[in-house]
This record gives sequence, structure tokens and C-alpha cells, in this order.
Amino acid sequence: MKDRLIFIGVIGGGEVTSQISRLAEEVGREIARQGAALVCGGMGGVMEAACRGASEEGGLTIGILPGDSRHAANPYVRIPIVTGIGYARNAAVVRSSQAIIAVDGSYGTLSEIGFALQSGIPVIGLNTWSLSIDGKADTTIIRSDSPKDAVNKAMALIRDQQ
Amino acid sequence: MKDRLIFIGVIGGGEVTSQISRLAEEVGREIARQGAALVCGGMGGVMEAACRGASEEGGLTIGILPGDSRHAANPYVRIPIVTGIGYARNAAVVRSSQAIIAVDGSYGTLSEIGFALQSGIPVIGLNTWSLSIDGKADTTIIRSDSPKDAVNKAMALIRDQQ
Amino acid sequence: MKDRLIFIGVIGGGEVTSQISRLAEEVGREIARQGAALVCGGMGGVMEAACRGASEEGGLTIGILPGDSRHAANPYVRIPIVTGIGYARNAAVVRSSQAIIAVDGSYGTLSEIGFALQSGIPVIGLNTWSLSIDGKADTTIIRSDSPKDAVNKAMALIRDQQ
Amino acid sequence: MKDRLIFIGVIGGGEVTSQISRLAEEVGREIARQGAALVCGGMGGVMEAACRGASEEGGLTIGILPGDSRHAANPYVRIPIVTGIGYARNAAVVRSSQAIIAVDGSYGTLSEIGFALQSGIPVIGLNTWSLSIDGKADTTIIRSDSPKDAVNKAMALIRDQQ
Repeated sequence: MKDRLIFIGVIGGGEVTSQISRLAEEVGREIARQGAALVCGGMGGVMEAACRGASEEGGLTIGILPGDSRHAANPYVRIPIVTGIGYARNAAVVRSSQAIIAVDGSYGTLSEIGFALQSGIPVIGLNTWSLSIDGKADTTIIRSDSPKDAVNKAMALIRDQQ
Repeated sequence: MKDRLIFIGVIGGGEVTSQISRLAEEVGREIARQGAALVCGGMGGVMEAACRGASEEGGLTIGILPGDSRHAANPYVRIPIVTGIGYARNAAVVRSSQAIIAVDGSYGTLSEIGFALQSGIPVIGLNTWSLSIDGKADTTIIRSDSPKDAVNKAMALIRDQQ
Repeated sequence: MKDRLIFIGVIGGGEVTSQISRLAEEVGREIARQGAALVCGGMGGVMEAACRGASEEGGLTIGILPGDSRHAANPYVRIPIVTGIGYARNAAVVRSSQAIIAVDGSYGTLSEIGFALQSGIPVIGLNTWSLSIDGKADTTIIRSDSPKDAVNKAMALIRDQQ
Repeated sequence: MKDRLIFIGVIGGGEVTSQISRLAEEVGREIARQGAALVCGGMGGVMEAACRGASEEGGLTIGILPGDSRHAANPYVRIPIVTGIGYARNAAVVRSSQAIIAVDGSYGTLSEIGFALQSGIPVIGLNTWSLSIDGKADTTIIRSDSPKDAVNKAMALIRDQQ
């Protein structure tokens, strides 16, 4: 399938500060500029801000929803997927993405980071969780300090997979 | 969301006769001609034939996959959704669709018909299951005798919902 | 695991007539008498009646719930499993059972019959759906005319699998 | 439902050191001694060790399996639940538990911790992940330093919920 789209996931809380919202919007914008499709959980907060950014740049936005109705999607989701499986849909958001950008972090985001690392899908972090165990930091999450840098890293990692 | 796409689901067996395959391909073609997106389980048989038809007419094809890899999708799926939830993804195929066209029928298709009828999503049947209980036929599945008629009926029912 | 329990699933509508309710209760009772555990969706109607019957005979009852709370289980469920995945849990009810007894039938029951037949799990039917395609009856559902006969058939089929 | 059992979840990696295995086994043992049922993912490593411990004390063990077969359960699982939904079953392990004890930690465990904290289910940690964000430690995971202390804390928290 030569022309299958590159899918980058954006994960983050459903309720966020305006600073985080601007960061997520810029991540969405940059994903669209680089020609990738944006995958997310389809709801508010980071998900809505990222979809708005991508949408304004003409990008494709996919929202994998927890509930039973496509009407619950934020208004910038172009492709609503209605799973009806609740938070377990977090696993589908992750699996459908070739790399994940985590912006800030709720506990739901933590579950998605766990699924991504378990599945070997790279996670790039912007203001997100740090993990340690027995006093040793886990450095598997790739740190980034700007939306553009995060998307560049995601695209480079996806090209390396192919 | 003014420009949200109309989604029509096509369900049917993963292994089919060439006659059923031609029927499914024509359903996919007609969905694309009428400007709707095609949702399916993303695998072979009816799903692949319908995606091939839609794809040849320039339509959008969404495959909601049971497994863990986007590479399992048939080559005509443009948007692979990787659920990792096995056959339980049948519920997501149904819920993501505004109407369902059932072409022929495997037992997996029967589970999807059950989910659709349970969720109040209209099912149009082409050579598919007939149901009865206590000797009385259940007539909730809307019978159709051609791909074009099936898609016309699906589009009319979706417009009525809106 | 020598002493792993035999699991028989009971499926049927959440809202039922008193006649069907008595039938389901007697199925539950008979499952317990024959020493098997009862698996169901954990909610009302056929599920509650069957759990009540099994419970009164001292049997083990497992309810695989669609929602997010164990408190939604009917009062005769001893082991509530809280999936949070909505109707997709129907696939887990079926897969956890070594044989299924379908009592009457809602559309949710139809989705469970589809899953069971797709997975090769035997389905015994008491007043449930009949299926046909292209005018030919599908005889894969094993017909039964009493709760005792249904449970006898389920037990015999499970012993044959082992 | 007066006599509904108390369910404590035990989560942890599928491959573990012998030290962690002994810790998990002792957690399982203590859960059974205190009269609660043990819920887990039903596979190896921490899950198997905990089930072995509980089983040796006569406790009830429930394994919520990712795959399609009850035969994949470890030999100490008394109640195998066959979800067929892959890693998304982690959400069901968490939701079915009234408190969670996390022993050591794989990335799958991290996804379960995320789900539990998102759902307001208390998590007690034994040698497990520490979380921080923006340099600030998240102290929602309740630390414990022995199996007995962990189970005591779980039981106290569950009694407080009721």
C-alpha cells in the first residue's frame, strides 16, 4: 500500500490549561504541515486543541471515541470511530499510531504511555510524565522541548521503522 | 460539524465466492459514487472487495482491524484503525456506521447484524441471513436486491436520521 | 488444572416475559445441580433469572458486566467482572463459556449466537432465533425443548471437547 | 448483595526475578488469608506467583485473560475469564478490583496503574513505578514495604469505600 498515510497519535488530558492547549494545537498544526494524519481519542482538551490545529492546516484528523455516539467527537474530528468500549479504547488509539506525542499528562495519558511502551511504539514527551523505579529513571520516553521538535522526532522514528 | 462524512458499513464473510465478491465490489463502488465513506472490518473477502470498489471510484475506506498491526489491512484500506481487541471490534464497525449493508453472511456477520439491530442502526441485506423466532419472521433487516438499491436505501435512511 | 470448573453460558434478553423468566431460572438451577458454573452478562431478565436459579441451588454465578461498576450486577451474581467495554463484552461472555444456552432472544442474544458460532462454541437453543440464508435453514444451533435437556446437551458436548 | 466477595487486584510483569516472584506469592497468600478474592491478568510472572500463593491458602483466584482460550491461564487460576480483547483487558482487570496492589512493574503494569488512578481505584505500590511531572512527584500511589502491609492497606481502603 504505497500511499498509506503516516499516523501520529497525540495524547493528553481532557481538561487542560490554556498553555497546554496552545502547545497541543501547535503539535496538531505541525503534524498536518508534515503531511501526516493525526490520531487521538476524539474528545476535548489536548485532543480537541490538536485536532483544531491539524484541521486549520488542512490535515486529516481521526478520533477514536470511547462512547456510543459519533456526536460526542470534538468538532475538528474528520473521521470519528465509535468504539463503545470506554477507556479500553486507549489501547486502540495507541495501536493505530506509528508514534505517539504525549502532551502534559492525565492518568488516562499514563495508561496510553504504558500501552505504547509495552507495544514498542515510540513515545515523545512534551511536559509529560517522568517515570522511575527503584530510584532509577526510565528514559524510554523521548523528551522534546517544542511541538516542531516533537513532530520531527516522530517522523524520523517512523521513517526508521519502514 | 457540517462537513462530517456519511459513513456506511459493509459487512460480510472473510472468504467468499466470486459472485459475492462482485456484489460487494459493486456496493463499495456505489458508496463512493454517492459520496459516502466506507467502513468495514478491514480484512479480506467481502471487506476487501468492497474497499477495492470504493477505492477505484476514489472513495474513502476505513478498516477497523481486529489485530495488532496495520499491515494486516487489505490493500484498499486508506484509514487502518488497529484495535487489538479481536472479534469484539465487530461492535466498533457497527457503531461507527450510520447504516449497514450486509452482503451474504458468515457467523461474524451475524454478530454484527445483532449489534446493529440492538443499537438501532439500520441493516440492509443483500443475500444475507433471515431471522425468525417461534415460527415468526423478523423483518427488521431491510431486504434489497441490488448494490445500487442497497446504497440508495442506506443513504435515504441516514438522511432521515439527520 | 484438574479442578478447573466447567463454565456454561446462558444468554437471553434483559427484559422478558414471566414464562421465559421461569425457563431461564430452571436452566440456572439445572446448571448448578450438574456442578457447572454459570456465566452470563450479569444484568437483568434472562441473566438474573438464571443466576437466581443457580444461586438457590448453591451454584457459582459469574456476571461479565458491560459497564463500569460492580453494583450494576444483578443480586445473584457471585463473581462480578467489570469490563467497561459495553456490548463488546458479549464476546467475552461467549468466549468464557464452553457451551452456550440461548433462552428466547433479543438482538444482543443474536450477536452472542454469532460470536459463539464463529468461535466454534456449541449453542443450544430454547425458544431462540432460527437462522436461514438463501431459503436454506442453518441447523448449527442445537434445538432443545426443556431446561434439563439443554443442560444435558451442553454437558455432553463439553465432555466431548475434553 | 451482602455476601459479595471483596476483590483485590494484583498487577505486575509477566517475567520477573525470583525475588519479585516471592513478593507476589506472599501478596497472594495474604489476600487469601484475609478472605478476599484475587483478581489478575491470569498469565505468568507476578500473576502466576500471586495466584499460587492465594491458591495454597485456599483463596479464590480470578484471571482475566487477554487471549481466546481458557487454557492459556496459569494453573492456579480458578475462574478464567476469556476476553479475547488483548491488552485492552488491562482495563477490565483494574475495573473489577476494589483496590490494586502493583508489584514491581512492566509497561503493562504502568497502563494498569494509569487506568486505576483514572478510575479512582486505589493503588498500593510494592517496588513499583514512581511518577513525576514537571519535577513534582505524584504521590497518589500509596507506598508499602511488605506484602502484609500492602494487603492491610488495601482492605482498609475498601472498607472505607463501603
